[in-house]
Amino acid sequence: MINANLVIKNPNFIDDVKTSFQQQGILKLLGAKLEKIEPGLVEISLPFKPELTQHTGFFHAGVTATIADTAGGYAAFTLFPAQAIVLSVEFKINLLNPAQGQLLYAIGRVIKSGKTLSVCEVSVSVTDRTKTLVCAHMLQTVMCLPPKTMDKTVK
Amino acid sequence: MINANLVIKNPNFIDDVKTSFQQQGILKLLGAKLEKIEPGLVEISLPFKPELTQHTGFFHAGVTATIADTAGGYAAFTLFPAQAIVLSVEFKINLLNPAQGQLLYAIGRVIKSGKTLSVCEVSVSVTDRTKTLVCAHMLQTVMCLPPKTMDKTVK
Amino acid sequence: MINANLVIKNPNFIDDVKTSFQQQGILKLLGAKLEKIEPGLVEISLPFKPELTQHTGFFHAGVTATIADTAGGYAAFTLFPAQAIVLSVEFKINLLNPAQGQLLYAIGRVIKSGKTLSVCEVSVSVTDRTKTLVCAHMLQTVMCLPPKTMDKTVK
Amino acid sequence: MINANLVIKNPNFIDDVKTSFQQQGILKLLGAKLEKIEPGLVEISLPFKPELTQHTGFFHAGVTATIADTAGGYAAFTLFPAQAIVLSVEFKINLLNPAQGQLLYAIGRVIKSGKTLSVCEVSVSVTDRTKTLVCAHMLQTVMCLPPKTMDKTVK
Repeated sequence: MINANLVIKNPNFIDDVKTSFQQQGILKLLGAKLEKIEPGLVEISLPFKPELTQHTGFFHAGVTATIADTAGGYAAFTLFPAQAIVLSVEFKINLLNPAQGQLLYAIGRVIKSGKTLSVCEVSVSVTDRTKTLVCAHMLQTVMCLPPKTMDKTVK
Repeated sequence: MINANLVIKNPNFIDDVKTSFQQQGILKLLGAKLEKIEPGLVEISLPFKPELTQHTGFFHAGVTATIADTAGGYAAFTLFPAQAIVLSVEFKINLLNPAQGQLLYAIGRVIKSGKTLSVCEVSVSVTDRTKTLVCAHMLQTVMCLPPKTMDKTVK
Repeated sequence: MINANLVIKNPNFIDDVKTSFQQQGILKLLGAKLEKIEPGLVEISLPFKPELTQHTGFFHAGVTATIADTAGGYAAFTLFPAQAIVLSVEFKINLLNPAQGQLLYAIGRVIKSGKTLSVCEVSVSVTDRTKTLVCAHMLQTVMCLPPKTMDKTVK
Repeated sequence: MINANLVIKNPNFIDDVKTSFQQQGILKLLGAKLEKIEPGLVEISLPFKPELTQHTGFFHAGVTATIADTAGGYAAFTLFPAQAIVLSVEFKINLLNPAQGQLLYAIGRVIKSGKTLSVCEVSVSVTDRTKTLVCAHMLQTVMCLPPKTMDKTVK
């Protein structure tokens, strides 16, 4: 099902993902952590805290979407040329099960790595004391902006 | 284009939206505010702070999605029977323009209010000193859970 | 909510939509007709026939999606430069009500017209003898390919 | 990543998929064939003909969506109780590569099988003389209607 073109164009992709991750204010606010960086795959985890909940006490769908969008975006970014920028074009997420547990983690994988657009899928699971459950699934389109073209006319 | 069935079943819908909103830890963490509650329409605003940004300094797409999902969910909730619970089934969001500015606000509107499922669209804009720009558009499906059925077997 | 940039770059856009429409084998097979072509807006109609149905006798969701995708794509195309080609990147469609009736029609509108990507929304309605009902809503991303770049490396 | 609950409730699911498939006028018009029916998985193929094309001569995105929606819907249906009806709630499809070739086939898999809602993903590939290429990926929500509730108030 996965049919990505896993050509690595930026040999420093691991360090570049780490650097970019630290520039994201929201990921610090939420408490997200980078768990895995491979060509075409990035995993992000997020421990539970009451500040991340919706009205029934589970992780908010927007929080789930935030780490899923980030995992997918960086998965695509691992296959970009050096100094390119990744921007989300759009994503769709299905909330499959209540995101109830101690740890949320999102695994983003590249389905298609194109020159301009890449498509990723992201699976989000939640771990409780005794079990792990898939709680969300995302299908996402991201854009590769070459260096110095970061303006709104590109998109 | 909007063809919603705007029948109000819960006369206390305004207070119930406010109460539910305050139970969401993530909305407090982000700093979101309820701006408008009408039958089939809810508006939420979010002032900029550096803790809400992605790697280029704008509002993170996940933050945009969080307030959009919340605005759409509560828009549907205004038409639910009393004591029902709203859960997001899925949503898709397009990021149309960079979310760069001082204030983000999301307006959710009900397109279809069904017994079990409702469909909403949400427009998100960003305001800078001199202009307002639509930065995202969401199409969302939410579920109405009648009282005392809040368990995973329903969905 | 609509915030499109309705600059016309191709003065022959009406004729070009008509010519392109006639090149689509599937639209002839289904029986679709162009009803309206305006800057940033295209309407397509499709009369009912039993060959267009799903298992309960209504228009199949895929048929609804086909005319919606086409209406949105051409709506974006009206704002493209001359000789550019439109390709669908992705779309999401909600089936709001049973598509039961004598005539299906889709109205596509541009939300954002960008250099490379455009975003459209499409409302699909179905008309029976006595009433018209919105039966589907689509949110779509399309790509503008400049002339002579129609190859898979672009996307 | 797949975490479906593959409990079979209808022992005649294979025959029921075949019967329902033959009731769909559009599938006959397009020329689609059932290739595989397993618990939680259905595969559908569609040979090329000029009547299925868009303006550049490839399979139209709406045609791709039609067989993908059908494959996903029936994949969910294999896990429904006897005599239940499947309806598509919504789907999102990414067109990854040009659908150019002699045979299109869609494989739908259940990600989540719920009492009311099921979520499926569908991978669509196209085969030419020398190679097979993934050309589309769908994420879909379908609804299970118990017998005798097939009216618009349910949804």
